[in-house]
Amino acid sequence: MSEVHVSEVRAKAGKARAASVVMNRMTTAQKNAALSAMADALITEQKLILSANEQDLDHGRSQGTSSSLLDRLKLTPERIKDMADGLRQVIELQDPVGETVQTIQRPNGLHITQIRVPLGVIGMIYEARPNVTVDAAGLCLKTGNAVVLRGGSAALYSNTTIINVLRQALQATDIPPEALQLIEDSNRSSVDEMLKLNDLLDVIIPRGGSSLIQNVVQNATVPVIETGAGICHTYLDASATVEMAEAISLNAKVQRPSVCNSMETLLVHQDYADRYLTALGETFRKAGVEVRGCQQTQHILPWAAAASAEDFATEYNDYILNVRIVQNLDEALEHISKYGTRHSECIITENTAHANRFLQEVDAAAVYHNASTRFTDGFEFGFGAEIGISTQKLHARGPMGLPALTSTKYRVQGNGQIRG
Amino acid sequence: MSEVHVSEVRAKAGKARAASVVMNRMTTAQKNAALSAMADALITEQKLILSANEQDLDHGRSQGTSSSLLDRLKLTPERIKDMADGLRQVIELQDPVGETVQTIQRPNGLHITQIRVPLGVIGMIYEARPNVTVDAAGLCLKTGNAVVLRGGSAALYSNTTIINVLRQALQATDIPPEALQLIEDSNRSSVDEMLKLNDLLDVIIPRGGSSLIQNVVQNATVPVIETGAGICHTYLDASATVEMAEAISLNAKVQRPSVCNSMETLLVHQDYADRYLTALGETFRKAGVEVRGCQQTQHILPWAAAASAEDFATEYNDYILNVRIVQNLDEALEHISKYGTRHSECIITENTAHANRFLQEVDAAAVYHNASTRFTDGFEFGFGAEIGISTQKLHARGPMGLPALTSTKYRVQGNGQIRG
Repeated sequence: MSEVHVSEVRAKAGKARAASVVMNRMTTAQKNAALSAMADALITEQKLILSANEQDLDHGRSQGTSSSLLDRLKLTPERIKDMADGLRQVIELQDPVGETVQTIQRPNGLHITQIRVPLGVIGMIYEARPNVTVDAAGLCLKTGNAVVLRGGSAALYSNTTIINVLRQALQATDIPPEALQLIEDSNRSSVDEMLKLNDLLDVIIPRGGSSLIQNVVQNATVPVIETGAGICHTYLDASATVEMAEAISLNAKVQRPSVCNSMETLLVHQDYADRYLTALGETFRKAGVEVRGCQQTQHILPWAAAASAEDFATEYNDYILNVRIVQNLDEALEHISKYGTRHSECIITENTAHANRFLQEVDAAAVYHNASTRFTDGFEFGFGAEIGISTQKLHARGPMGLPALTSTKYRVQGNGQIRG
Repeated sequence: MSEVHVSEVRAKAGKARAASVVMNRMTTAQKNAALSAMADALITEQKLILSANEQDLDHGRSQGTSSSLLDRLKLTPERIKDMADGLRQVIELQDPVGETVQTIQRPNGLHITQIRVPLGVIGMIYEARPNVTVDAAGLCLKTGNAVVLRGGSAALYSNTTIINVLRQALQATDIPPEALQLIEDSNRSSVDEMLKLNDLLDVIIPRGGSSLIQNVVQNATVPVIETGAGICHTYLDASATVEMAEAISLNAKVQRPSVCNSMETLLVHQDYADRYLTALGETFRKAGVEVRGCQQTQHILPWAAAASAEDFATEYNDYILNVRIVQNLDEALEHISKYGTRHSECIITENTAHANRFLQEVDAAAVYHNASTRFTDGFEFGFGAEIGISTQKLHARGPMGLPALTSTKYRVQGNGQIRG
């Protein structure tokens, strides 16, 4: 017996680190065979998974968990099939590992190739949806990484069973089961420990609400890819086409208000507001949207509540919309610079110069001209997968596909070169 | 008078943030004109700079500062000319800002362009060399960033004067002088404050010794690009050519032992050691290198000291070398995996299969076959500049040129697309 106590987190991260060395050698065919076996196992073992999920749901109900959270937690045969299909879709995606990023031939004869390599060991910290467990496992393995998963305690039975099923499936493949690790300790301290595990984790990706993400950003010493928060704006310029302005702004608000790329604030040019805001306001009201407006907005929409500075700084993720009337493009840009979270921002205009200024000057992961901010999404961008939407500027920005889970290295080949 | 006290760090970072909005609009020509004016000013105002530097040197001498640190601190007309020439070289480099990284045409008609943009505001924390002040200013401005510099207190007079000269030069250009900020508060607390300034800084790049870098990595909540530490190995395989093995390993150790890409440990295949280690050891001894060896090494080189596990884990940056004899390539790979810092690693061999395995399996920013690890450098790689050598895997890995100081954004152009 060792005298040193090694925590669950350190022990499992250590196993993932060892497995990552093997993962680094795996071919695309070996990784795809493993993903296929994992997908099959989810279907074969779905009774086991559903029964574990029922335990989580029972526990949740006994704790008075909200029905919306229970819904996110709940698995069905259809949802399990979706998870398996998701893994099969990852098989079809191009493997970025091994790609040549650039080749450099130096005058001294050195031949330098920058190639794409796995990140190594990825830590994922997330909340209640068990499908994230499967998604993350699939995307990390496809890119040759090992992964340490720390899901929410509400889904612990489901996640434990899913990971057991996936690891069992890996036994018959070349991929080491140890490449998939799940932290079962649901105390907050296990998250705290992951955040400081610089010798074993190469990156931590948080997925979930803003308090989860802020805890990771504020306390991690391991490099983090920040995802999530979106206070997104749509600006209706004076020359916006009325039908387009209505269709896009309504879509941005109500098509799925709970997600980060939905609109929280509508900025309206004075001239547009004078002519069309009465009708547009009515459209939002009929769609069940509570409008909170600036003073000028309240003048045009007397039924609207007043919007405070705090409202402009709030990500509602709900059927609530701030409306502010601005005098010109500059005022719209200033508002976005002050309140935006650099996620997705949109201008509706027929004025090309205004569109170009907006696209150039707004500092955000995605800037739109005449299209809904709801398109900021890995699938909608054609990446075939999405690990999350990065709202930071380092490493990856915006929707992250498989390349975001890779790094690079330089291979330098010589014939005896030394530095003079 | 405001009742709220705003610290120097927050006030200056806020000015840099505001300037970064203007910087984002600057053309390459505008930025190059500013760099040229800065270079001219360094020469015109060199008396002022030399006199300030003399104050730092006087202060250093009175504090008993070591002569090597005083040498790094000392400016001369030649060194000032080198700094000005460095700025002029940056003018010649291609501006990465505005480059199209990829274009995506979606079936729904959305046209997506991923373009390179400045990071925004870069924080640099560094030590005694005043040339870093000029280097960092030039590279950050060329890439459209504002920069907040926090140099070592030993160079405070020099840095303050240099920044005043550079900002004065910017007055006559389109670049806002506020884009260059120097923190003059030499208390440790000003560094601590920078590390947590997530709302104003987009990234912090530390440059200096390992304690400076570890302080930043351990305490920053702002994203960090870690640079620096290098425990680099050279492995002499059984089939290594004797002349090449000697030339490369000697170059890797003694050409400039103080830098991060120099060799700390020589791994030698048993067969090579049996035949050639006696002569090679003598070569190192004659070059003034202290050898610390494993037991087998001491058997062949009886004059060598014993190498401990701690020695293998130490970055000497000095005329000291660990030597370990290994049975085969696997043992060499294991040693590197255990003790390497993922910086630069080299194999000398005529065996192609061994070379390929080494290049594939070693996890490091740069992996070498038959060339000295001393080439891990932005200039040697042909980048024309170097902000530092990243030893992390996110964002940038290895020598960082101008693109490492940029991010990207997606411009999405539509004609009314909404999400279904």
